[in-house]
Amino acid sequence: MVNQRSDATWQSCKSDSSGTSNSGESSKESSRCSTPVLDADRTDRLRDKMRRRIESGDRWFSLEFFPPRTSSGAVNLISRFDRMGSGGPLFIDITWHPAGDPGSDKETSSMMIASTAVNYCGLESVLHLTCCNQTKDKITGHLDKAKRLGLKNIMALRGDPVGADWVEEDGGFSYATDLVKHIRCEFDDYFDICVAGYPTGHPEAESYEVDLTHLKEKVDAGAHFIVTQLFFRAETFLKFVKDCRSIGITCPILPGIFPIQGYHSLRQLVKLSKLEVPEEMTQVMEPIKDNDAAIRSYGIHQAVEMCKILLASGEVPGLHFYTLNREVATVEVLRQLGLWAEDPRRPLPWAISAHPKRKVEDVRPIFWASRPKSYIYRTQDWDDFPNGRWGNSASPAFGELTDYYLFYLKSKSPKEALLQMWGEELTSEESVYEVFTNYLSGQANRNGHKVMCLPWNDDPLAPETNLLKDELEKVNRRGVLTINSQPNINGKASSDPIVGWGPAGGYVFQKAYMEFFTSSENVAALLQVLKKYEPRVNYHIVNVQGRNITNAPDMQPSAVTWGIFPGREIIQPTVVDPVSFMSWKDEAFALWIEQWAKLYEDESPSRMIIQYIHDNYFLVNLVDNDFPLDSCLWQVIEDMFQLLDGPAAPHDGPL
Amino acid sequence: MVNQRSDATWQSCKSDSSGTSNSGESSKESSRCSTPVLDADRTDRLRDKMRRRIESGDRWFSLEFFPPRTSSGAVNLISRFDRMGSGGPLFIDITWHPAGDPGSDKETSSMMIASTAVNYCGLESVLHLTCCNQTKDKITGHLDKAKRLGLKNIMALRGDPVGADWVEEDGGFSYATDLVKHIRCEFDDYFDICVAGYPTGHPEAESYEVDLTHLKEKVDAGAHFIVTQLFFRAETFLKFVKDCRSIGITCPILPGIFPIQGYHSLRQLVKLSKLEVPEEMTQVMEPIKDNDAAIRSYGIHQAVEMCKILLASGEVPGLHFYTLNREVATVEVLRQLGLWAEDPRRPLPWAISAHPKRKVEDVRPIFWASRPKSYIYRTQDWDDFPNGRWGNSASPAFGELTDYYLFYLKSKSPKEALLQMWGEELTSEESVYEVFTNYLSGQANRNGHKVMCLPWNDDPLAPETNLLKDELEKVNRRGVLTINSQPNINGKASSDPIVGWGPAGGYVFQKAYMEFFTSSENVAALLQVLKKYEPRVNYHIVNVQGRNITNAPDMQPSAVTWGIFPGREIIQPTVVDPVSFMSWKDEAFALWIEQWAKLYEDESPSRMIIQYIHDNYFLVNLVDNDFPLDSCLWQVIEDMFQLLDGPAAPHDGPL
Repeated sequence: MVNQRSDATWQSCKSDSSGTSNSGESSKESSRCSTPVLDADRTDRLRDKMRRRIESGDRWFSLEFFPPRTSSGAVNLISRFDRMGSGGPLFIDITWHPAGDPGSDKETSSMMIASTAVNYCGLESVLHLTCCNQTKDKITGHLDKAKRLGLKNIMALRGDPVGADWVEEDGGFSYATDLVKHIRCEFDDYFDICVAGYPTGHPEAESYEVDLTHLKEKVDAGAHFIVTQLFFRAETFLKFVKDCRSIGITCPILPGIFPIQGYHSLRQLVKLSKLEVPEEMTQVMEPIKDNDAAIRSYGIHQAVEMCKILLASGEVPGLHFYTLNREVATVEVLRQLGLWAEDPRRPLPWAISAHPKRKVEDVRPIFWASRPKSYIYRTQDWDDFPNGRWGNSASPAFGELTDYYLFYLKSKSPKEALLQMWGEELTSEESVYEVFTNYLSGQANRNGHKVMCLPWNDDPLAPETNLLKDELEKVNRRGVLTINSQPNINGKASSDPIVGWGPAGGYVFQKAYMEFFTSSENVAALLQVLKKYEPRVNYHIVNVQGRNITNAPDMQPSAVTWGIFPGREIIQPTVVDPVSFMSWKDEAFALWIEQWAKLYEDESPSRMIIQYIHDNYFLVNLVDNDFPLDSCLWQVIEDMFQLLDGPAAPHDGPL
Repeated sequence: MVNQRSDATWQSCKSDSSGTSNSGESSKESSRCSTPVLDADRTDRLRDKMRRRIESGDRWFSLEFFPPRTSSGAVNLISRFDRMGSGGPLFIDITWHPAGDPGSDKETSSMMIASTAVNYCGLESVLHLTCCNQTKDKITGHLDKAKRLGLKNIMALRGDPVGADWVEEDGGFSYATDLVKHIRCEFDDYFDICVAGYPTGHPEAESYEVDLTHLKEKVDAGAHFIVTQLFFRAETFLKFVKDCRSIGITCPILPGIFPIQGYHSLRQLVKLSKLEVPEEMTQVMEPIKDNDAAIRSYGIHQAVEMCKILLASGEVPGLHFYTLNREVATVEVLRQLGLWAEDPRRPLPWAISAHPKRKVEDVRPIFWASRPKSYIYRTQDWDDFPNGRWGNSASPAFGELTDYYLFYLKSKSPKEALLQMWGEELTSEESVYEVFTNYLSGQANRNGHKVMCLPWNDDPLAPETNLLKDELEKVNRRGVLTINSQPNINGKASSDPIVGWGPAGGYVFQKAYMEFFTSSENVAALLQVLKKYEPRVNYHIVNVQGRNITNAPDMQPSAVTWGIFPGREIIQPTVVDPVSFMSWKDEAFALWIEQWAKLYEDESPSRMIIQYIHDNYFLVNLVDNDFPLDSCLWQVIEDMFQLLDGPAAPHDGPL
């Protein structure tokens, strides 16, 4: 859908500074490359995704968000990205918030929120960028940073002048067209560029026709698609598209949809954007204007009806939603339109990051299964990512634990909620066992609170782990404190709702895995028991000081999840890697202190109990290699307890 | 086992020319490497293998060969390498044959035979090198070439002077010690070096004691192990070892074992090497000296008894056999000693090349399954080899078919034998079908000859293919001319005698695969039938002109053999790669002409029949992705025949 003429335009303006070009033409390939390195910028660009969806008639939607004001707002917004991302948007976009230091490293900046969406939530993202009140150099700086962070798409806007007396900065830009040209000149074809269209004309434009000409200029300067301002009638948009096409604009034009979510917020928005609400709508809304629920429900109805007309017209390949950072209305509209992916097929068992550097990544250690964002964070500086094989990770340089970030060692839940779940006061190690058991059983604790998360699991139990719930409860009750486990799977369909992943028609497999904290007494018995299970069970046992016992052959990683698919190579997305386990254990042990012990006063008994566990317990992982047989790991634990309970207790005592 | 003092010696003689150093210390690793590149020279050197075997008390044997005189002798010797390689020698060595242009590219040269053993037969090999009559530069040239060819071990010898008036060449060497020093100076620690020991003293040495001092000098100069001249009494060797140890030689000393294979050859050898045959042996042999069988059987008995004493002494970690390029006696001695590996565990389904560059290689296309040497040959110039994944082989540069080599497009069998097997005169395409059917059934053809090979299969049917024999016979009889196939396997033990491979305790899997030539009429019907089998069956169909029909998604490779092992990542040693298939088809079609058609006169009917098949048939491969179910490929073929036979024949006609 790239406009040929606009390509010619920007080609002629290429400056010397296009050394930042990322066209990929120059990279010399070796005679044989064992890694399927796809050129991110050529085969997987947003414009290509749009083109393929248009060709196949597969309609999409996209979601607009604005950056939050506070750091806890940021944590919430990221959770929303995860939830709304699961519905299958083609992309999301983050507005540029000039007053909020938008290009900074603050966790609430436009730049960092967009980066988080790409890197940690795996969402194709478009970063807005406005040019008024900014120098060329500053803009180039923002773009350089965006590129470095893995962002590939820019929404080029003029932005609102601050105050009425705004004049062009020296060396700045007056119009979005200038910004588009600048991006193409300085960054060649690296970024996909979106520009704004105004179905009723820009409020400051001389006329609707003149505004259309400006839009044509923006596209000719090198923009790849258009997202429109909101509007209230389908015919407004359809006329606009027709007028665009008639003057030679050929790129995709996506209607901006605004589900009305409240009467007063609508009034304010309309005033700001100088739009008019049609008479027939105000007539409906006036009588119910103080009934929020009724207004929302009307808003949803109105948006659904309008979208139906738009989609039926054949002129609309995708819908763009102004979410106002809210979830319910937009999701409901999408559900009613049948565009919300209720059960998105997982391409891998874990969420893929959308950073182009990580494109080929398809293997990760299982340890971070419940903490994927922490894994992405700790590996963000890697030059390349495991593909096909984890490999012999002699020294995978995991990021240090001294770095903190939004979701790194912090819980999503506030302190009070955590205390309610994990206990205002702990009296013994057993009260810790109880917290684990309650998390697994889903039952309320003695104070009537459900344990919805643990330091190692920010979310309720995964459906897959539910398969093991009863067995897990039993062992946790006795002090085998499980933080990660998976059942063995011997060739289930890749479409299986619980354990399936990957393309259709495939088969998925797993080795049974269990990871837990337990006392040194238990470990002493466990080591005796494990001798009976050689070489069926691989184990790795470590304490906080790094004392390290394993039978992994040559410290090699072991694949514990893999899939076989029609016409593809084997995919093995998770491994147990003895080397990485040493980095993970630092994090796993730190979570006892950072998330749990620190809830309590220094020197308090509760804190000392957690500290004791942290200092004395071992972290254990077990893999049962005989995946076609019933898992023997429960029997291993049972044998351990029997040995401990038996008349002839081990003479060795604790480790 | 490296002698510390000798290390000090060579360290001090390092010259500037040690730029050829391959110590690996300098290679800077990236922050994260997804490929487990082991440093060939550090972890898998012959000296390390010996050290590990000595530590574990696991005795080994090695085999000495000399280069053949003729090119057909070379083909035979290479087959012998394959057969004797399967018995599990720790290494083989190839003598340096000064009269035979030993460093040349001739297929009979010492250099090329050693290279073939390493690269194509996957054998750890030691190349002999003599220094007399050669300049330093020439020797360096040989060593450079050996290194380039993937050879890692040198047996450093003085060699026999040519004629009595031999004097040291200018810039040459007089002693093996000088050669050892030269290798260590010029190539640092790259080569493992072997030197010769003389249990009764070198015939030209002043005395036994002086000769021992020379040996000590060779070791101090940097040799890693010693192989001795042959001897006839165990005590001769054991005394020699004791004397070596007493003067500080600590490296492994391997006894040279010579199973007597004939009375007269023994006499000649003894004369040349100035050895004495003990009285007790001549007494036994004299009476039976004209009975070859009796002498051989005595030779085997004598060698076995001597080896038993040697092994029992605890002084002998491995036995070195002078094979004289013969198989029977040496193999029999090894069998009686229990050192011959009757059923060597296969690390992968195909034979691994021993070239250090190919160390990490663990994926190959299935097409060359019966022609592994051709595959190695056509990929010898690759910079790196697939590991873990085959990858997206956009343009794997396979060597051209215009190159010929020992085993490349030639058959091992002579023309007359091929004509007897494949028919002196072909009368129709059906007579070709019969050849294929007879190959599969193992039954004699109408002239009483068994078909032991086909152009695409130089050996009789693999045991695994035997599982499919009846079905294969049936379809070949009707013109589905199979050249490669494997059954589906759903998790058999890795120790399975027929389909097993890889480490113990694992499970192996396969997708059913079939590859065949067939007429364009059949292909037209097949394509109709295959629609019913989407996406279960992946197919790739191509004719000699390159007309190319496939349903492989994105031309991606498909894994068809894989294994799951305790404590390891998934290994997937064979794939069906649609891109490589286009290179393979050139070879597969060329074999019709090069091996078969050319047996007949130009313009003869037989030749024209083969030429017709070559020009008009298609090469087809089919993969059944549903490996847990019974293979559907037979049904696919059956459906094709039914469609062809049915009352409503397809209207399309031939392609």
